[in-house]
Amino acid sequence: MRGLFVGRFQPLHNGHAYIIERALSEVDDLIIGIGSAESSHTSSDPLTSGERMDMILKASAVQGIRDRIIPVPIRDVNRYSVWVSHVTSLVPRFDVVYTNNPLTEELFHEAGFEVRGTAMVGREKLSGIHIRKCILKGSPWKDMVPAPVFEYLMGIDILSRLKGAVPDE
Amino acid sequence: MRGLFVGRFQPLHNGHAYIIERALSEVDDLIIGIGSAESSHTSSDPLTSGERMDMILKASAVQGIRDRIIPVPIRDVNRYSVWVSHVTSLVPRFDVVYTNNPLTEELFHEAGFEVRGTAMVGREKLSGIHIRKCILKGSPWKDMVPAPVFEYLMGIDILSRLKGAVPDE
Amino acid sequence: MRGLFVGRFQPLHNGHAYIIERALSEVDDLIIGIGSAESSHTSSDPLTSGERMDMILKASAVQGIRDRIIPVPIRDVNRYSVWVSHVTSLVPRFDVVYTNNPLTEELFHEAGFEVRGTAMVGREKLSGIHIRKCILKGSPWKDMVPAPVFEYLMGIDILSRLKGAVPDE
Amino acid sequence: MRGLFVGRFQPLHNGHAYIIERALSEVDDLIIGIGSAESSHTSSDPLTSGERMDMILKASAVQGIRDRIIPVPIRDVNRYSVWVSHVTSLVPRFDVVYTNNPLTEELFHEAGFEVRGTAMVGREKLSGIHIRKCILKGSPWKDMVPAPVFEYLMGIDILSRLKGAVPDE
Amino acid sequence: MRGLFVGRFQPLHNGHAYIIERALSEVDDLIIGIGSAESSHTSSDPLTSGERMDMILKASAVQGIRDRIIPVPIRDVNRYSVWVSHVTSLVPRFDVVYTNNPLTEELFHEAGFEVRGTAMVGREKLSGIHIRKCILKGSPWKDMVPAPVFEYLMGIDILSRLKGAVPDE
Amino acid sequence: MRGLFVGRFQPLHNGHAYIIERALSEVDDLIIGIGSAESSHTSSDPLTSGERMDMILKASAVQGIRDRIIPVPIRDVNRYSVWVSHVTSLVPRFDVVYTNNPLTEELFHEAGFEVRGTAMVGREKLSGIHIRKCILKGSPWKDMVPAPVFEYLMGIDILSRLKGAVPDE
Repeated sequence: MRGLFVGRFQPLHNGHAYIIERALSEVDDLIIGIGSAESSHTSSDPLTSGERMDMILKASAVQGIRDRIIPVPIRDVNRYSVWVSHVTSLVPRFDVVYTNNPLTEELFHEAGFEVRGTAMVGREKLSGIHIRKCILKGSPWKDMVPAPVFEYLMGIDILSRLKGAVPDE
Repeated sequence: MRGLFVGRFQPLHNGHAYIIERALSEVDDLIIGIGSAESSHTSSDPLTSGERMDMILKASAVQGIRDRIIPVPIRDVNRYSVWVSHVTSLVPRFDVVYTNNPLTEELFHEAGFEVRGTAMVGREKLSGIHIRKCILKGSPWKDMVPAPVFEYLMGIDILSRLKGAVPDE
Repeated sequence: MRGLFVGRFQPLHNGHAYIIERALSEVDDLIIGIGSAESSHTSSDPLTSGERMDMILKASAVQGIRDRIIPVPIRDVNRYSVWVSHVTSLVPRFDVVYTNNPLTEELFHEAGFEVRGTAMVGREKLSGIHIRKCILKGSPWKDMVPAPVFEYLMGIDILSRLKGAVPDE
Repeated sequence: MRGLFVGRFQPLHNGHAYIIERALSEVDDLIIGIGSAESSHTSSDPLTSGERMDMILKASAVQGIRDRIIPVPIRDVNRYSVWVSHVTSLVPRFDVVYTNNPLTEELFHEAGFEVRGTAMVGREKLSGIHIRKCILKGSPWKDMVPAPVFEYLMGIDILSRLKGAVPDE
Repeated sequence: MRGLFVGRFQPLHNGHAYIIERALSEVDDLIIGIGSAESSHTSSDPLTSGERMDMILKASAVQGIRDRIIPVPIRDVNRYSVWVSHVTSLVPRFDVVYTNNPLTEELFHEAGFEVRGTAMVGREKLSGIHIRKCILKGSPWKDMVPAPVFEYLMGIDILSRLKGAVPDE
Repeated sequence: MRGLFVGRFQPLHNGHAYIIERALSEVDDLIIGIGSAESSHTSSDPLTSGERMDMILKASAVQGIRDRIIPVPIRDVNRYSVWVSHVTSLVPRFDVVYTNNPLTEELFHEAGFEVRGTAMVGREKLSGIHIRKCILKGSPWKDMVPAPVFEYLMGIDILSRLKGAVPDE
């Protein structure tokens, strides 16, 4: 049995890690759809798809789940009526969708898929936007992401990337 | 060290399998770029990106290389001057490119990447177009692809897909 | 003589119905351009083009004007300098444009078309955004739309569509 | 009950007229999907979507079926995996598909729609490409299309349009 | 030696003129990249690319630098990871980039180009948005732009263009 | 008075140079529209827009017409019904169109522009395709292009570019 979990992973944080862990207790392997794959260098989407794949691969190697996750970039099509077809044509076959996003739930539900909610833990702090703000302000954020993610983001100088980003938040 | 190998995999055949095997003797892991990812249901591109990922995952599981390959769909941009940026933004960081396609070689070479040729074995027969023709004509093709690929393609009724395809070859 | 009236019809309301009625007192038939045709499932554009066509066809059948209106989906091109060419290439020939939108008026005026203003009646309440808000809040909205539109929207569960929509207003 | 018939109508000819007539003996109304809607001024697609709508409206008025047909422009998306979603989002709800095109049949069949074949009468001659060739060569073609279509095409000087067209056949 | 200076020039004002003058004291000729080239008829981008070229050509003729500047329209690609490749494929070869925009600086810097800052003079007032607001409010703006620009904008009735524009600021 | 001459300039050859010279005897300045601007690295379109601008600027400097020509990249839109609007929005205002291409003539004629034919001299040999073939075969081609063009193309190693190109002719 295979699951699909779509997120933007800007960056991958402990909330995502928790959902992935829980999903992997229910399915054999999990497609990790990297949404807005072609966006990068903006305040809300600083990282490229490739950088997000690198980050996900490093974290999953440490967690020993490298061969159970399937990361796949998914570009926006900005046309919700074809979005489910877009996703299903890009990723391998799956049985169940994990999401807390109302529109994702609505669209997969309309298309007849099983959708499972993903109750976030400490959602407020474990959001990408909160972490990006912490990085910019110099507030501590190390404990909100898996260790390999912190190391990776420091290595590519995430602070300078965010400073040069288009302010779209 | 990581390699990148881009193909269309319509379908994955023993020629591809040989290149992948050889590349994995030189690098730690290998990105398998699935070219023309958004094409499907045509004579030259019958399979969707998702079907090609399924096929690649099944074959690599059997070969025991599932955790050393990274399949990534790469859509066409039809603009070669930005193609290398397109690819590098989508896939994780890599060190060397494997290809025998002259344009791919030219473009990565112009961009300063190391490119390694991939001498095909029995190239004539081990081409996607030859295999697709065999399927349509009812000629034997089982021995040209890895066993899990044959099984997978029979399961999705590849013959009927090819019969309904747009004749673009 | 033929007119063109472009709107988004999210949903078709009595303000639109009044303009259509008035236009049909001046022209033989009226093209109803369904703007932002490829948008759907958002707060400001919940309905697909097809759903909007269904709604318009049902209402016009009841009003007995089914054979005098020509509904045509018009996708956004996000490039105003080619917008008039875009529209004229998609719809049948027409003689006059009905609109109160300043940009539509400016663009058709620059291109040499006759443009007639459409003074709205009770515009404040008879706007799509107001009706969508009423639906979400549970306020009465039945009297703001033609009867077949109300029936149609209830049939497709417009409330649940709006709840799952991307909040872009 | 409603049908969908997709064609390019370059131009509308007696073969199309026959299929429309037959379909209307089975369904209440018929959506006429105008394929490749955004193509024009080429040898295989000389007419714009709007010109094709004009032609279809004129012919249907003469045949007295104006209020039973629903012409809708459908642009190409060049991505067959989302094509059915594309079409269903653009046109009003329908119950059955009329087509003789193998790919259209395959795609709607995969998506679970009822598809009915449309046996052409004298297909060989009643094809758009044959009629366009006749026009260019000066051979007679008047009897291959409905009378209002002939009149319309003469009125817009179809010969000069074809002479200036991009030769893509 | 050749420079590249990218702006939107909505409209060309004395701040731009100052940067161009300074750049031409350092390089032989200067490419003037006209950004968001395909945007027009909005509040923030009222002028088409062609109108902006006309304005730039007129101003440069008066300043006697017509044969040292190379205006080139550059459309948005909305994908920053390929933006530098996009620009370099469109414009002739250049050696140095002039910009004060943080993202432009970041992207060209990541790609290995030399970037020179452009300290604005009286930046606050010499901004496109300020001038567009002055035009709309009827405040004086003649002294903020080169004389040929003022004359050109009056000639195309910039006030009426701005009044009909989509309000996106 | 200003003219517009659209070509692909793959490469700029003596036939183009002759048309430019003749046009400049009739108009004050001439827009040189660089068609298919975003194509490159193929057999029929080997050079990028930027390379073609470089080539045109060098040749025009030698001919002393640098300040009378205005080179502008024009990307394909693959939709002929909006093509004239596309071009007129991108380039500065012009009065007359120079072309021998039947479709360009038809489209500008339909839009009401004055079009002047450009009788080619020795057209057969002075075509881009002929010159590209000569380069690939090692036949002499130096005399078919302006001297600065020959020098420029040798400098960027046009032969190796053509060898790596996608064979689309």
